[in-house]
Amino acid sequence: MSELPSRVRVMEVGPRDGLQNEPAALPVTDKIEFVNRLAASGLRDIEVTSFVRPDRVPQLADAERVLAGIDRAEGVRYWALVPNARGLDRARAAGVRHIAVFTAATDGFARANVNVSVEESLAKLRPVVQAAKDDGIVVRGYVSTAFGCPYEGAVLPSAPARVARTLLDAGCDEISLGDTIGVAVPDDVERVLEAMEEMGLPRGSLALHLHDTFGTALANVHAGLRAGVTVFDSSAGGLGGCPFAPGAAGNLATEDLLYLLDGLGIETGVRLEGVYDAAEEVAQALEKALPSRAHAALRAKWGR
Amino acid sequence: MSELPSRVRVMEVGPRDGLQNEPAALPVTDKIEFVNRLAASGLRDIEVTSFVRPDRVPQLADAERVLAGIDRAEGVRYWALVPNARGLDRARAAGVRHIAVFTAATDGFARANVNVSVEESLAKLRPVVQAAKDDGIVVRGYVSTAFGCPYEGAVLPSAPARVARTLLDAGCDEISLGDTIGVAVPDDVERVLEAMEEMGLPRGSLALHLHDTFGTALANVHAGLRAGVTVFDSSAGGLGGCPFAPGAAGNLATEDLLYLLDGLGIETGVRLEGVYDAAEEVAQALEKALPSRAHAALRAKWGR
Repeated sequence: MSELPSRVRVMEVGPRDGLQNEPAALPVTDKIEFVNRLAASGLRDIEVTSFVRPDRVPQLADAERVLAGIDRAEGVRYWALVPNARGLDRARAAGVRHIAVFTAATDGFARANVNVSVEESLAKLRPVVQAAKDDGIVVRGYVSTAFGCPYEGAVLPSAPARVARTLLDAGCDEISLGDTIGVAVPDDVERVLEAMEEMGLPRGSLALHLHDTFGTALANVHAGLRAGVTVFDSSAGGLGGCPFAPGAAGNLATEDLLYLLDGLGIETGVRLEGVYDAAEEVAQALEKALPSRAHAALRAKWGR
Repeated sequence: MSELPSRVRVMEVGPRDGLQNEPAALPVTDKIEFVNRLAASGLRDIEVTSFVRPDRVPQLADAERVLAGIDRAEGVRYWALVPNARGLDRARAAGVRHIAVFTAATDGFARANVNVSVEESLAKLRPVVQAAKDDGIVVRGYVSTAFGCPYEGAVLPSAPARVARTLLDAGCDEISLGDTIGVAVPDDVERVLEAMEEMGLPRGSLALHLHDTFGTALANVHAGLRAGVTVFDSSAGGLGGCPFAPGAAGNLATEDLLYLLDGLGIETGVRLEGVYDAAEEVAQALEKALPSRAHAALRAKWGR
């Protein structure tokens, strides 16, 4: 048996990263119910919404209302995505104490996404992270395209490692390495984590944000576990899809992740059935078939 | 990096195991075209059909006509499933030189499937395998429910190991260990392969037949690779579904397997694009969405 961590933290990104990429917008009350159900399932990290410009991401234009409506369960960290100082102000006003900032490993993606180079985006994020930290807010940094880029193709592991190092030095508490287009295989995970090690990043500061576009997400999770990673991002039901491959799977589904972790005897504190129910409600509201493999298998088993 | 095999044999089971579990039957000419396309993609092992009773599996009642219609490409092994002496006679008459026999690791599954216990089924298979070997035919033995059983639940690794040992002693050239309901996680693969080792089965005599019901198939392939397994079964497009979980994914898709193996730099001799095209034709004929993750991602990429 490989030596694996005994406990893993699951970062649920369905309400933000998932819903942001769904063509239809979910009503505010359904979003609030979704977040509350996810918290009730035992999830302790939930990315609730985003403070990007509403005209850019209309699906999440209701950020303030969602945050005002949800229960604040004891011990649950409710995260919000923040692109800049204006977003930080909105987040603070909404009572958010856990934020995520984002950049990419490649200039091609950064330019397409935030219209500046990676260096420029890091320079712009630095004061935002600093202001948040000064206020006692916990900050997570996303590094997109850490394993491959839709514009530049293959990515050298040193690229995300350099960006991750800069974000950590800027004050981020945790770095989430994103396989934005879901192209990684386990060797890539090993290589990127080795590059992080060479750059002096503590393993405990790293999370993996994997996509299942080519079916490799759980193989990559297992590679991460073998390398000592203990934080994994996932989306209930696999909500979100892949904006770069319409019709393909995107975010790793929380149900699939939990099935694997439960099977490996790794504690998460999360009840798979609770996540299933939360995702099922959203699927019905969106009239959408969920990409999660485990969700489909459990539906057949449970008959509901 | 883990040490992985440099070359892997892919056993394509779509025409048999895949189509057998599709509700609609494919016309004979489409099946012939499917097999020929798969061979043209570089696959060297194709399970073409089955000689089970046509009233039991009407989808494959055309076994003789399919085998008479396909090209016999140089270097390709065309396999057929054979349940008993009568099936062996039919296979021989159809010019088949590679057969597969099947049993299970659990009595519950064997009784449901072939109406006898595992021991009784092994006793019945022994003369069939012997007769085939006497005729110079290559024989593969399937062990279903090696990782879990829809009737008995968890399965001790010693159970499939004992059955595999018996089949090998009876003359089988290769044993394929089936995760019939797709419940395995990588630790289970390690445990079952360790049990095979303890039972003295050479690693080179073993194949893994994995299902992606809960999304763990490629993680399990990777565990098999790390343990030195070099033969993997898969179904083009992921055809077949899971009879025990309607609506869920079943057979590991050949496209997903090839995506992983290509990404790991492991040679197969198979062109992913050729398998994609073969599966796409069948999907259109069956008017069916394929469960393969890689297939969906490549469709978005290639736009066809």
